[in-house]
Amino acid sequence: MALIVQKFGGTSVGTVDRIKNVAARALATQAAGNDVVVIVSAMAGETNRLLKLATDVASIPDTREIDALAATGEQVTAALTAIAIKELGGRGRSFLGHQLKVLTDSAFTRARIKAIDASRVMDTLAQGTIAVVAGFQGVDDHGNITTLGRGGSDTSAVAVAAAIGAAACEIYTDVDGVYTTDPNICKTARKIERISYEEMLELASLGAKVLQIRSVEVAMKYGVPVHVRSSFSDAPGTWVVGEESSLESVTVTGVAHDKGEARVMLVGVNDRPGVVARIFGALAAEGISVDMIIQNAPSDAPTSRVIVGGPESRTDVTFTVTKADLPRVKLLMERIADQVGALGIRYDEDIVKVSIVGLGMRSHAGIAARMFEILAQEGINIQAISTSEIKVSCIIAQKYTELAVRALHDGFGLDKLGPEG
Amino acid sequence: MALIVQKFGGTSVGTVDRIKNVAARALATQAAGNDVVVIVSAMAGETNRLLKLATDVASIPDTREIDALAATGEQVTAALTAIAIKELGGRGRSFLGHQLKVLTDSAFTRARIKAIDASRVMDTLAQGTIAVVAGFQGVDDHGNITTLGRGGSDTSAVAVAAAIGAAACEIYTDVDGVYTTDPNICKTARKIERISYEEMLELASLGAKVLQIRSVEVAMKYGVPVHVRSSFSDAPGTWVVGEESSLESVTVTGVAHDKGEARVMLVGVNDRPGVVARIFGALAAEGISVDMIIQNAPSDAPTSRVIVGGPESRTDVTFTVTKADLPRVKLLMERIADQVGALGIRYDEDIVKVSIVGLGMRSHAGIAARMFEILAQEGINIQAISTSEIKVSCIIAQKYTELAVRALHDGFGLDKLGPEG
Repeated sequence: MALIVQKFGGTSVGTVDRIKNVAARALATQAAGNDVVVIVSAMAGETNRLLKLATDVASIPDTREIDALAATGEQVTAALTAIAIKELGGRGRSFLGHQLKVLTDSAFTRARIKAIDASRVMDTLAQGTIAVVAGFQGVDDHGNITTLGRGGSDTSAVAVAAAIGAAACEIYTDVDGVYTTDPNICKTARKIERISYEEMLELASLGAKVLQIRSVEVAMKYGVPVHVRSSFSDAPGTWVVGEESSLESVTVTGVAHDKGEARVMLVGVNDRPGVVARIFGALAAEGISVDMIIQNAPSDAPTSRVIVGGPESRTDVTFTVTKADLPRVKLLMERIADQVGALGIRYDEDIVKVSIVGLGMRSHAGIAARMFEILAQEGINIQAISTSEIKVSCIIAQKYTELAVRALHDGFGLDKLGPEG
Repeated sequence: MALIVQKFGGTSVGTVDRIKNVAARALATQAAGNDVVVIVSAMAGETNRLLKLATDVASIPDTREIDALAATGEQVTAALTAIAIKELGGRGRSFLGHQLKVLTDSAFTRARIKAIDASRVMDTLAQGTIAVVAGFQGVDDHGNITTLGRGGSDTSAVAVAAAIGAAACEIYTDVDGVYTTDPNICKTARKIERISYEEMLELASLGAKVLQIRSVEVAMKYGVPVHVRSSFSDAPGTWVVGEESSLESVTVTGVAHDKGEARVMLVGVNDRPGVVARIFGALAAEGISVDMIIQNAPSDAPTSRVIVGGPESRTDVTFTVTKADLPRVKLLMERIADQVGALGIRYDEDIVKVSIVGLGMRSHAGIAARMFEILAQEGINIQAISTSEIKVSCIIAQKYTELAVRALHDGFGLDKLGPEG
């Protein structure tokens, strides 16, 4: 007998019939001798419907009220799932964030879980009842309803699994696991059987949408084994687990891409101490996250006439932000351009970030060089590069997305079965 | 400066624009120097949509889960109303049943309020903020979400008004007050300016749908002045208040009708001690409310051959129940018909209950007789009668509904302006 947490996303609970399927699956898992906790998202489309109501009422709706509003989506699904479990002859009981209680900070619309009281879930399970938990939501110290951000139900699931010491946290979704790259782009993409938390974290950060980043962080922190799988089949999916020796033998585990970023270039900025700090300080003050930052002396720009290092020295500052933040970035940059002595500002939304991820990079030299070589062979120019211990990302023109992903995927041998496959 | 509670029903918050109107009205009331608490219902149609989801999932959905589900309707409206208040430059804050906290018993789908913690509302008002309360919902001792039954937001409003000692509880609805009878049936119906709690209670019980019965009970118990008025105009509506000397001068205040009942007749039941108790005991055990009960020795029935009072003595037992309960009543009656020796069972759904209500009946004799006379003049046969201190109800054939209502309304002079009009 094991403690199993099963999380079902919006598509998996998108209709009344699918909610019945979720109930049936939870009951089957229980019948196999397990204690079961089900975490549910809002029915597909419901969160968007609710947020549209809010933006119909106000241009910038109050975030506390957005959370009270949006949390109803998961509340509805949780109640319906508990009803479905009872209809099938089982025992089910819904729990909302404030009932469980999922204590968070007060950062509305993007709250972080501080603690979960496991006792109510454990009491429920001890009675042979399936606990059905509304995902995505929590409650702060003052009793306000909070939500955890898009995809937050993944984090709810992993956090509940950690709190009750579950043997596994199953994430049911509309794909059957984590792939070596996007199968819609690359026909040779393969389902990954096992992947480390670190790699999953990078893939999620770099554009793979299968799991919320924060959920992987929590899983890694508490060592919760996460099983990403399809809600429409019984086939095993992808296990996200701690580092294992067998994982190390693969140099590159996956190729990700993200079209959600835009590039901003401040041309010919004064190359003086404090100038760069002013630019990124202004962005931080607005709560705008910057991904890549590249500072380089201008080469082809007409401003390259000045002497580097002299009082008139100038440099180009390039960075990337999400496209969603771009309108605010533009306003901000126009305000500070003069202060930092910029000669011009350029924006480019036609970019994509392609990335390779793999634990093996730590022990294998030359992976980055190989990536640049593969892109060069396809005639793709690299606009910016960033690296970490286990990933390399390149910004390229968006039109090369599919070409680059396929070339990198097969170039690193991901089209062939790995040692564990 | 006064403390005002304003309750808005489903039609009044049925669209985003109407929610904005509610916000504007609350802000105008505040700007006039009042502290304002707004109680909102679910957007029109939303509760039915949610309940349909539940019955799509299960034939008899669990009531605890129905409440968790249905409560989201008011939660959405409360959040949107607070957002709308802020959009108009005001201060608004939503409160759910568990946040306020509206403590109820655990009778899901028809819970009763036990206590309301006024401190959070008072703190909010002290900051110049409008408190927006989700109606219809509460929380029990165990933290379960409960709902107060159809129209429960009226009760939420009156109970909050009582808890904070409000000067008035305004009930905004899609009609502009309480009428002497249904204006859709009777063109001479007049809006009542002032009506006593007792009369309103009878009218609500007898089919007038403008206020939930329980809300009138609470208003009467705590002496909360209730002002029923239109959300689409500024015209004064109907005040529901304690007894006043001026009210006494009117003998009949209103005429109500209710098509929601069905008549059940057990023919030729054994006329022995305990038999009637068995019938109504069985109904009570199933939680079925019986309205009128008439026991009479048979007159025209073929079973009237037996000697009254003898061991073979038989009687007819007639009662009325809601049409919603009739399927369960039929099952029950078929089961106990033999036990009570009934020779037959008859059901009649084509009935209506017409009633006259008025405090003046206490001091004026002959009101009931006058009612029977008016119905007789129209050739309407009375099938059953029940009376209380301030009302007389008659069951008649449903086809006479409009005729009876109009005849009684004008026959008791309700078409003419009363002393206070």
